[in-house]
Amino acid sequence: MNALLIEKLVREALMEDLGHGRDVTSELLIPSDASAKAVLRARAPGIIAGLIVGLSAFTLSDGDFEITLHANDGETVEAGQDIAEIEGPARPLLTAERTALNFIQQMSGVATLTGKYVEKIKGTHAKITCTRKTVPNLRALQKYAVRCGGGHNHRSGLDDMILIKDNHIAVAGGIEAALDLVSNAGHGLKIEIEVDTLKQLEAVLKHGGADIVMLDNFKPADLKKAVSLAKGKIVTEASGGVTLETVRAIAETGVDYISVGALTHSAPALDMGLDIDI
Amino acid sequence: MNALLIEKLVREALMEDLGHGRDVTSELLIPSDASAKAVLRARAPGIIAGLIVGLSAFTLSDGDFEITLHANDGETVEAGQDIAEIEGPARPLLTAERTALNFIQQMSGVATLTGKYVEKIKGTHAKITCTRKTVPNLRALQKYAVRCGGGHNHRSGLDDMILIKDNHIAVAGGIEAALDLVSNAGHGLKIEIEVDTLKQLEAVLKHGGADIVMLDNFKPADLKKAVSLAKGKIVTEASGGVTLETVRAIAETGVDYISVGALTHSAPALDMGLDIDI
Amino acid sequence: MNALLIEKLVREALMEDLGHGRDVTSELLIPSDASAKAVLRARAPGIIAGLIVGLSAFTLSDGDFEITLHANDGETVEAGQDIAEIEGPARPLLTAERTALNFIQQMSGVATLTGKYVEKIKGTHAKITCTRKTVPNLRALQKYAVRCGGGHNHRSGLDDMILIKDNHIAVAGGIEAALDLVSNAGHGLKIEIEVDTLKQLEAVLKHGGADIVMLDNFKPADLKKAVSLAKGKIVTEASGGVTLETVRAIAETGVDYISVGALTHSAPALDMGLDIDI
Amino acid sequence: MNALLIEKLVREALMEDLGHGRDVTSELLIPSDASAKAVLRARAPGIIAGLIVGLSAFTLSDGDFEITLHANDGETVEAGQDIAEIEGPARPLLTAERTALNFIQQMSGVATLTGKYVEKIKGTHAKITCTRKTVPNLRALQKYAVRCGGGHNHRSGLDDMILIKDNHIAVAGGIEAALDLVSNAGHGLKIEIEVDTLKQLEAVLKHGGADIVMLDNFKPADLKKAVSLAKGKIVTEASGGVTLETVRAIAETGVDYISVGALTHSAPALDMGLDIDI
Amino acid sequence: MNALLIEKLVREALMEDLGHGRDVTSELLIPSDASAKAVLRARAPGIIAGLIVGLSAFTLSDGDFEITLHANDGETVEAGQDIAEIEGPARPLLTAERTALNFIQQMSGVATLTGKYVEKIKGTHAKITCTRKTVPNLRALQKYAVRCGGGHNHRSGLDDMILIKDNHIAVAGGIEAALDLVSNAGHGLKIEIEVDTLKQLEAVLKHGGADIVMLDNFKPADLKKAVSLAKGKIVTEASGGVTLETVRAIAETGVDYISVGALTHSAPALDMGLDIDI
Amino acid sequence: MNALLIEKLVREALMEDLGHGRDVTSELLIPSDASAKAVLRARAPGIIAGLIVGLSAFTLSDGDFEITLHANDGETVEAGQDIAEIEGPARPLLTAERTALNFIQQMSGVATLTGKYVEKIKGTHAKITCTRKTVPNLRALQKYAVRCGGGHNHRSGLDDMILIKDNHIAVAGGIEAALDLVSNAGHGLKIEIEVDTLKQLEAVLKHGGADIVMLDNFKPADLKKAVSLAKGKIVTEASGGVTLETVRAIAETGVDYISVGALTHSAPALDMGLDIDI
Repeated sequence: MNALLIEKLVREALMEDLGHGRDVTSELLIPSDASAKAVLRARAPGIIAGLIVGLSAFTLSDGDFEITLHANDGETVEAGQDIAEIEGPARPLLTAERTALNFIQQMSGVATLTGKYVEKIKGTHAKITCTRKTVPNLRALQKYAVRCGGGHNHRSGLDDMILIKDNHIAVAGGIEAALDLVSNAGHGLKIEIEVDTLKQLEAVLKHGGADIVMLDNFKPADLKKAVSLAKGKIVTEASGGVTLETVRAIAETGVDYISVGALTHSAPALDMGLDIDI
Repeated sequence: MNALLIEKLVREALMEDLGHGRDVTSELLIPSDASAKAVLRARAPGIIAGLIVGLSAFTLSDGDFEITLHANDGETVEAGQDIAEIEGPARPLLTAERTALNFIQQMSGVATLTGKYVEKIKGTHAKITCTRKTVPNLRALQKYAVRCGGGHNHRSGLDDMILIKDNHIAVAGGIEAALDLVSNAGHGLKIEIEVDTLKQLEAVLKHGGADIVMLDNFKPADLKKAVSLAKGKIVTEASGGVTLETVRAIAETGVDYISVGALTHSAPALDMGLDIDI
Repeated sequence: MNALLIEKLVREALMEDLGHGRDVTSELLIPSDASAKAVLRARAPGIIAGLIVGLSAFTLSDGDFEITLHANDGETVEAGQDIAEIEGPARPLLTAERTALNFIQQMSGVATLTGKYVEKIKGTHAKITCTRKTVPNLRALQKYAVRCGGGHNHRSGLDDMILIKDNHIAVAGGIEAALDLVSNAGHGLKIEIEVDTLKQLEAVLKHGGADIVMLDNFKPADLKKAVSLAKGKIVTEASGGVTLETVRAIAETGVDYISVGALTHSAPALDMGLDIDI
Repeated sequence: MNALLIEKLVREALMEDLGHGRDVTSELLIPSDASAKAVLRARAPGIIAGLIVGLSAFTLSDGDFEITLHANDGETVEAGQDIAEIEGPARPLLTAERTALNFIQQMSGVATLTGKYVEKIKGTHAKITCTRKTVPNLRALQKYAVRCGGGHNHRSGLDDMILIKDNHIAVAGGIEAALDLVSNAGHGLKIEIEVDTLKQLEAVLKHGGADIVMLDNFKPADLKKAVSLAKGKIVTEASGGVTLETVRAIAETGVDYISVGALTHSAPALDMGLDIDI
Repeated sequence: MNALLIEKLVREALMEDLGHGRDVTSELLIPSDASAKAVLRARAPGIIAGLIVGLSAFTLSDGDFEITLHANDGETVEAGQDIAEIEGPARPLLTAERTALNFIQQMSGVATLTGKYVEKIKGTHAKITCTRKTVPNLRALQKYAVRCGGGHNHRSGLDDMILIKDNHIAVAGGIEAALDLVSNAGHGLKIEIEVDTLKQLEAVLKHGGADIVMLDNFKPADLKKAVSLAKGKIVTEASGGVTLETVRAIAETGVDYISVGALTHSAPALDMGLDIDI
Repeated sequence: MNALLIEKLVREALMEDLGHGRDVTSELLIPSDASAKAVLRARAPGIIAGLIVGLSAFTLSDGDFEITLHANDGETVEAGQDIAEIEGPARPLLTAERTALNFIQQMSGVATLTGKYVEKIKGTHAKITCTRKTVPNLRALQKYAVRCGGGHNHRSGLDDMILIKDNHIAVAGGIEAALDLVSNAGHGLKIEIEVDTLKQLEAVLKHGGADIVMLDNFKPADLKKAVSLAKGKIVTEASGGVTLETVRAIAETGVDYISVGALTHSAPALDMGLDIDI
């Protein structure tokens, strides 16, 4: 991940929490020269992500913190397991605590949910991938968390891949016309096209020019047919209606990728806490 | 909500999605003079929040959009119900679509989850309130969404209320010492103090000087005793271990406020979509 | 104070002074390897505030400065007294000099004027408090300087307290209606209401629901009556027409708080200088 | 003045006042569709400055305000005189009120104090000029206010003029050496040099190469001698110890410019208010 | 192009030119109510790019400008040809003039140079593409200008494509190891690998897994061999030592893409001027 | 140069290159604990500028880089000459490489082209100066590079000098009127006026009040006459149509300054590379 982006986001989050500029409670109650030790501890099992992001809330608040990691991003932890130790001045430790946790819990929540999907399809050929349905302004962090959870990333934005959806096809006047219009886009961008029917898939395969086909809301039986049609000709991706209940059946159709919006828009935070000893 | 803050956040989110600066697909497939109509439609029942926030993604992208609201923030919608119509140039409509949805779905998710908690405790005296466990850099939006869902806001940050927690008490040398230290904080800030036992509550009540007591992780029976001790003397707030399953019992103890971190850190997005007609 | 906010403001001020990006004079006249010592010295008696803020202009310009404090924020200094020593590279020392002084002199001016008001009411029950009449974008620094001068802070902004003024009352349709409308604002915000007459005060007391009453532009005799009516029922604050000449009489009415806009909008800078030895 | 800079500063000030993002009082008490008229009125005599700056707080908050000016920057107003009318939606009017006033009162304070100095030296040859002793991050606004008050601007920053001070001279090894070092600085920058004695002035005149000489802390008698020595050879500027009491005597020495730090670092705000009719 | 990015860059450039915040000359010489017409005119033949970018300097400075385009981005103009007319208030027109021209001339310079390369290889199969050797912070504008000139874009940054260079190969331990390491990168990113010899090319072809091969600094004869080896198996790109003199020979080898750093790092500005009639 | 400005620009450029936030290739191919040495080497002869600017891309990316300079800004280097060594962690070294080079090559290109003009007029009295025709948002860096190349700087922006052009004269109603209007602008700003004919020059000289005259597009013979008319009365500057072919003849007229837009708007990058040994 990009250290400059992390710094920007964590600074903003610290400023957000400080509002008009002070942690009144700590100012009044904690002597300015007090020091403290804290242990970041998981309160529920899950996959860790964002340690460097969240813990930078401490070092950005004060240069004197010492941080020891007992786990790394991507590792699975049990409830009660120590994740990191933070030692330093007590006031900024209390001030940065919530910001640190908010980042790590959000990102670990994404990693953990991703891990559950990955686990469900174990042994199949398919890979789990995220979408652009991310929490505003946290996309890079969430995409990283998906990777920590064993998932793959779909495009990062509107600029780094061509993804032709139903509206684009309609305006262009059909699948062939749409693929023709993007054929001159340059050699750096993958081209994906969304299809809703086997017929559309056949048109894509016949015409050529796409790298990936998104099989949107296909029923399992149709998905299986689609995958067998596409095999060796184009990368396949299933999307729509993917849940922890349905994902295994989808994966067993042989599809290459399964994209899941919930990984980033609906992952519950992973429960953890900071036990402080001042 | 603050229009300048909304503008800042939505601009950043649009820039995040545009990455190096272009929606390649729409540039290649949608004629620059095409116009489109779109309907924002709920795909699941819930409470709407953030319409003005999300829809500003369109107007910030291009000045020519006309937007008609069919629902307002705070209203309950059914699956399939129309929420708003957007009409304007097709390219920026497609470009801003995902950013608009990401905001509205996140915020409506928070409002909807809040509404579920509020519904659960209907008829009791208690009120649901949020925490500082928010998604980084979206706190003001999430706090607003909590209000849309019928909840109340706890403090916005470290600066607008004094909240004395266990660590503060320990460092100060006890409840009395802690309350003495904040007694001169000025007339503008409410003082809340966290207690873990009935004994601590008694110390708070005896000493005076606090406006609110946070009863942290009390069992229902103890909570009931605490509320009866505190009645008429101090505002009570229950926190810790609050779920949709446990909240009713907590509310029935007569406590004034129940704070729920999940409202903002773990609300799943409310499903909705934009049906576009170019 | 918030270290991140300080850094932001001081960086901006240094950039403001550097304009198109260079200190031409020092570039041409000071060898790049020259070092210097400087003493920050008061040229008039007063209360110091903002040392960490202003002196960060040096450390933000160059990492090699060593700074020794001979006084701390909140201390009273005499004319001629040494406040701090700065040692380091001569060029950035000269470049940052004016920015450092501009912050410290402004903030110390606020602290010093606050101290004069506090001194005037010594022995009375009242406390001096500031207002939102602050220099744009320096509010947090000025509020801190007020505390250094022995004053108290009023609300920091429009978000951290409810303050019902005459216009709000008029629109709401009277004091009772106004207090009813804010009664559901949540447990985190204090409620203050402005009254212009004893009759209005009586209405506030009768209705209940406010934490503080602002007695605006009351004559001393009326103020005394108001204070005696309010005693034990509500916190009182006098505002309007407060000067160094009138403040003692106001304080002697027994009022709890006296708010003074001049503390932040009209405090003259405290005279000080940097004696440099290159 | 630069409209983009104004917009940036006023946005920041509005955000500063809104803190975590809402004007709670107005949200609860003012109907969202209420409209209001307000009159900006002087409460003390003075010179107006910053109307466009301050009033933009309204238009930046909401596009629907109509503003009518009854006075312009640089005009003298009496106590009670109407300055401007603002008409528009009531909520944002109340929200932006304090920010608008804070800008206009600060800038009008600077203009008014400048006007007093200018008035004192009426009939003499001298001109009043400001310094870099400005309120951090408001320099461009304060320099403009000085012009509104009839004063002149000194350099804007470290980049737009060469000003050789005592430390520069000492390091360079004397006045001649210093002037030699800057002689190749290019044709776009004026060169000013500070002298403390008549002897130093003679050295400057003999050597040549400076456009302006700053006569620092000269006693009136010496200042007169200095001015007569310099006449026709170099522009003269008196600085140090200039007050409303001493400025006339200084001006009568025939000096060209008199620089006054107090114009910008110690100007009390000009009293004014917004009378609102919702 | 992204309208929000354009606005950000043009605002910054206007602020850069205004420095401490004023166009002194126009303030003193142009009446505030004067209006003016101006014609943007080419002074040399070339391809236009960046009209919307540069002309926004006027509309961002003042809302009252009317702009008429006589040419569009991507069009070839002759010396003396009218490109656009700008009509509006005279002061902001003069203030924004240089900023507008600086953008349009830079971008049109890039388009024009690109056009020359494209012209040189007319009739061949090859396409001209740019690199990441761009002017800092103007990459999106320059990439757009390349497209206006008939060129293609290479990757936009480090994030939107995998480009394995010699150092990566060396660290990975060879071409095969490198391609294995990136094989799991996900379905959204194209993979390009740089080779310096035919032997390396053979290794790439044998191993598979790359979409594009960059043939770096190949002599024409080797390039021809390389292209014939690669035909139908992988997209080919020639890079290194490409000039207007050498590009035709390179194109005639049958290579697919030719990347040229000079398009963006060394394009001379296209000469144009603004003829103003106040 | 201003260290804070450099930091801002280089951070932005690194973020621009990182786009959605990662260097995918290095992440996948370079072990996180690998370290590397790199040598910055000239590939063409020229004058170096911007080393501190460009190399800060490494230190801003990671605090562990050690940098050794073998040349300094303003020095002439030969093709193949070592300029600097960078040693540190391999991943951020590869990530920052292009950003570092883009700054140094651009700035060294400007210095090198400036040096060519300076060389051409060697032995004459004239000095080469730049203009405001700079690459947007890089002006301070380019002006510095001009100084590295032996050139002088013209005004930095619209605020630090008065430059009366033909349009200003026309609106003011003639040269005399224009000079009268700026006569009261204060003692800090130089006044330059553009003239197109000898007659206009005579008017300027007769009226007085200008420090510099810009002789715009004068033919050499007229320029010579103009210089002889102006000698000892006003500083002269030639502008318009200056190329490496024409500059010597212009300089030999005896003019004081020759301004050249191409220095900053059309300087080709100086070729250099980073040879890395991981």
